[in-house]
Amino acid sequence: MKLEKLVGDRYKERPNGCTAESHALMLRGGYIKAVASGIYSAYPPLRKITRKIETIIREEMDAIGGQEVTFPVVMPATLWQESGRYDSIGAEMARFYDRNGAGLVLGMTHEEAAVQLVREYANTYAKYPFMIYQIQTKFRDEARPRGGLIRVREFTMKDAYSFHTSQADLEEFYAACHKAYENIYRRVSLPEVISVAADSGMMGGRVSHEFMFLTPIGEDSIALCGNCDFSANLEAADCIIQNTPDPISEELKPVHTPGAKTIEDVCTFLNLPKEKSCKAVVYQCEDDSLVVLFIRGDIEVNETKLRNFLGCEIRPAALDENSALSAGYIGPYGLNSDCMVLFDRSLSGSNNLCCGANKPEYHYTGLDLERDLSGVKYHDFAKAIDGGFCPKCGQKTLKLSRGIEVGNIFQLGDKYTKTMGMTYSDQNGETKTPIMGCYGIGVGRLAASICEAHRDDFGPIWPLSVAPWQVHLCAVRADDPAVRQTADKLYQALQDATVEVIYDDRPVSAGAMFADADLLGVPLRVIVSPRNIQNNCVELVTRDKSQRATSPVNEALAAIQKMLNALK
Amino acid sequence: MKLEKLVGDRYKERPNGCTAESHALMLRGGYIKAVASGIYSAYPPLRKITRKIETIIREEMDAIGGQEVTFPVVMPATLWQESGRYDSIGAEMARFYDRNGAGLVLGMTHEEAAVQLVREYANTYAKYPFMIYQIQTKFRDEARPRGGLIRVREFTMKDAYSFHTSQADLEEFYAACHKAYENIYRRVSLPEVISVAADSGMMGGRVSHEFMFLTPIGEDSIALCGNCDFSANLEAADCIIQNTPDPISEELKPVHTPGAKTIEDVCTFLNLPKEKSCKAVVYQCEDDSLVVLFIRGDIEVNETKLRNFLGCEIRPAALDENSALSAGYIGPYGLNSDCMVLFDRSLSGSNNLCCGANKPEYHYTGLDLERDLSGVKYHDFAKAIDGGFCPKCGQKTLKLSRGIEVGNIFQLGDKYTKTMGMTYSDQNGETKTPIMGCYGIGVGRLAASICEAHRDDFGPIWPLSVAPWQVHLCAVRADDPAVRQTADKLYQALQDATVEVIYDDRPVSAGAMFADADLLGVPLRVIVSPRNIQNNCVELVTRDKSQRATSPVNEALAAIQKMLNALK
Repeated sequence: MKLEKLVGDRYKERPNGCTAESHALMLRGGYIKAVASGIYSAYPPLRKITRKIETIIREEMDAIGGQEVTFPVVMPATLWQESGRYDSIGAEMARFYDRNGAGLVLGMTHEEAAVQLVREYANTYAKYPFMIYQIQTKFRDEARPRGGLIRVREFTMKDAYSFHTSQADLEEFYAACHKAYENIYRRVSLPEVISVAADSGMMGGRVSHEFMFLTPIGEDSIALCGNCDFSANLEAADCIIQNTPDPISEELKPVHTPGAKTIEDVCTFLNLPKEKSCKAVVYQCEDDSLVVLFIRGDIEVNETKLRNFLGCEIRPAALDENSALSAGYIGPYGLNSDCMVLFDRSLSGSNNLCCGANKPEYHYTGLDLERDLSGVKYHDFAKAIDGGFCPKCGQKTLKLSRGIEVGNIFQLGDKYTKTMGMTYSDQNGETKTPIMGCYGIGVGRLAASICEAHRDDFGPIWPLSVAPWQVHLCAVRADDPAVRQTADKLYQALQDATVEVIYDDRPVSAGAMFADADLLGVPLRVIVSPRNIQNNCVELVTRDKSQRATSPVNEALAAIQKMLNALK
Repeated sequence: MKLEKLVGDRYKERPNGCTAESHALMLRGGYIKAVASGIYSAYPPLRKITRKIETIIREEMDAIGGQEVTFPVVMPATLWQESGRYDSIGAEMARFYDRNGAGLVLGMTHEEAAVQLVREYANTYAKYPFMIYQIQTKFRDEARPRGGLIRVREFTMKDAYSFHTSQADLEEFYAACHKAYENIYRRVSLPEVISVAADSGMMGGRVSHEFMFLTPIGEDSIALCGNCDFSANLEAADCIIQNTPDPISEELKPVHTPGAKTIEDVCTFLNLPKEKSCKAVVYQCEDDSLVVLFIRGDIEVNETKLRNFLGCEIRPAALDENSALSAGYIGPYGLNSDCMVLFDRSLSGSNNLCCGANKPEYHYTGLDLERDLSGVKYHDFAKAIDGGFCPKCGQKTLKLSRGIEVGNIFQLGDKYTKTMGMTYSDQNGETKTPIMGCYGIGVGRLAASICEAHRDDFGPIWPLSVAPWQVHLCAVRADDPAVRQTADKLYQALQDATVEVIYDDRPVSAGAMFADADLLGVPLRVIVSPRNIQNNCVELVTRDKSQRATSPVNEALAAIQKMLNALK
């Protein structure tokens, strides 16, 4: 098509308030327009990119036996009540009522709809395994949309659901889907995406993986081992701490610590390293009961682990002067409270710790938990630390990185099939409950990640497999009859050869033309200009400027096709 | 793919409560499953059909210069307040609030979003004309979903929006889009779809057309002329009545009509034809004010015309004994009321009419409106009648038919651009308001209409252009090694030739196999059976059973491809 007819504006100024470069470039290049917070319309170039991504995803899902279906965007509340998620999911799910007062929800994922679609069909073992998927609009009322297409409220997602009669069968398909995801990332030119063990969160199930595109602007923290292949979302990474006790356990004794309320204050006052302190962190459960968690002073709490351990939502407790707990002075020894008390394993094997003395302005020193308390049990509630021990190889080679989650896969087990009463007859005629896996990829976020990975200061550098067009044809000075004739002819020849081409024959300067071409990021630029025409040639430049060539005019089509093939 | 892995059940029994055959067949054939009233999931065969329909629509939109974009499903209420439709549209629009209390709506159409996307871009005449479109999920909270996919609440729609600087330019594009729609219906094998003049309803604008698939189960009534090319939705069809007055106008006089309240009663009592009666129909406006409409006794009111005339919503009035109007005895002469009084032109040119006398149990005879009242003005508020006069050629050749609306196109004018403040600079630098057209097609309803048009008692007969597969390969008695070997080899050969094939090698009877094939409606069936193998041939049958052939096994692929070409 002709660039002058392309709907959408391109401009030079970097818009304010963009934390992600892809966000700024997609605004500047006429790819997106915000309609509300976290809700965007897509201009034609982005729609072309997402259609190509969707085609790649579809091909890879079909290749592992996936069958495309459609679930509704709007679902009855009753369906989500069957699984229990109508109540367990919070404000991120949009809920409303129809004209007859029936409750409806907007789909943020479709496990319930998948079970509803197949629970009568898949009533015998012979129907298993199978996988169904769709590519469709979802809505999640995110509290903090950000980064353009990286975290939005409305998005297009490929969501797939597999059904199995055994864990082994689920694991086999899960591995095949993992491989299909790797194919997808490779084909869209994000081969550096890694899969990490993940926490299953609201989805349920035990085993899950996230596919992470590593980038400093990522919202997720990931623990990676520099020595072995261990990788996990920080939420799911075991924290390994090795304490070496002091040779002599000192006596437990109270110390007057006037005004020292924080771990920093206390350790400075007592001249102790933070590793030698036992910190109290207090949480409040949904039922308002309190949980006191003791953890080594230099280590942070991983709230996801605590939430999973307790099986309920938690929030930091608000303690005031009337509370039974003395905020700033809470310690495990002599704690006179009926609230739940937990110990992180970062405290295990240590001694001579300082801790709160459960009365204002006093702390203990010389705490030895195993000696001073009876029946202490340790659990892992800690955030893994940069430079810490790898849970897999045991080396002190753990690194924390940031990443964008560009896909996830879950072994759901029977969470949905059981609650929703889906069963089948096995070989012996016995009634059994099938198990499920689910597999998601957000299309828009993937497009944004590709942009993050492939760009320069002037715009995106779209990989050929997802580029909105293959060739950007620039007619510099199209008012020159020779330029006009050559460029028009080449435009026609490219179209006849089914090369996707955008043709810029506007009466603008070469600089303005090339700036627009940079923003559209088409892999191969072909320039017809008075100077080139004098030499009877056209100029070919890749978008990343790494390859430049000239070709005689009458060999231009072949030269373009050859260069495109090299870009594949 | 193999039929035994196809997700979805097929069954013989016609489900209860289906008014449309396509509804029954789509349930029986494993195409759809209801999730809630008017909300369906699609099984793989339907998804394959809708994808092919979407591709055809996309190609035709691209061919007239359409640029594909994406608008959000969820839009802020503020956007719809800009156009005024947030308030003017009733319960059919789903409204809800996000976690911060901001109002949101679900898109039922996207005029507002289209203007929002382009109003900065299209700021100068040189950017015009252009058209943007999307294919996306919509939600309308229909009061009475029915007929399976024919009237639903959630549906996939192609919606397109064009922008112009002159009415002539809009009309030119409108005509091109009309032609593109004809191409679409022809390509999906619904060439009998006709376009009819329509009422623009909530969309605004003056000129609009509906594309109607004529079928007795259609919800719309259409007026067609048997003599000329006139066609219109009944809502938009002028009603032409020719009255011949009696030679002598009788005296207006009251008659005691005990118990006669309806037009039937009165005319029977007075021994008059209904054409000689003046009926009163009373409506209530949104502000509860009353409107009395007088119309010839045998003619029905077209409420759409009345609504458009009044510019507000109306409902039949509930009159009780305390009302100033004597229900059953309301007449134009001596009507003592301050409500609005309207006259339909079906009363024009008549005399010697009977009508209510505005007191219980009394009517007048001998009414001559022009003689007895002053300043009577007639308007067209009547439903056109079967056998009535054609508004175009004037012949008494009007026929009423029923149809399903499978597309619509509107000349919107400046309704949205004006309210939403979209302007451009014209050639002289003057600020002008552009005008718009919009163009919709529902994908699922189109699939259902194709099914209605192409079916027999045993299932759909999908046209090749939209069929879920091209070939249905049946291996009857696949336990026979010769059948198995031949069928497997043919399955592979068809796949290698990129023929879309579904392969049934289940150990079921030929009867069960063919019943399933009928329900899946694939255009060409290929049968490998022990009897055929004995003759070293395979059997080819079109789904409609009109063509049968046998082919030697080693020429089967060529024979299949030839027969498929003939079905194109």
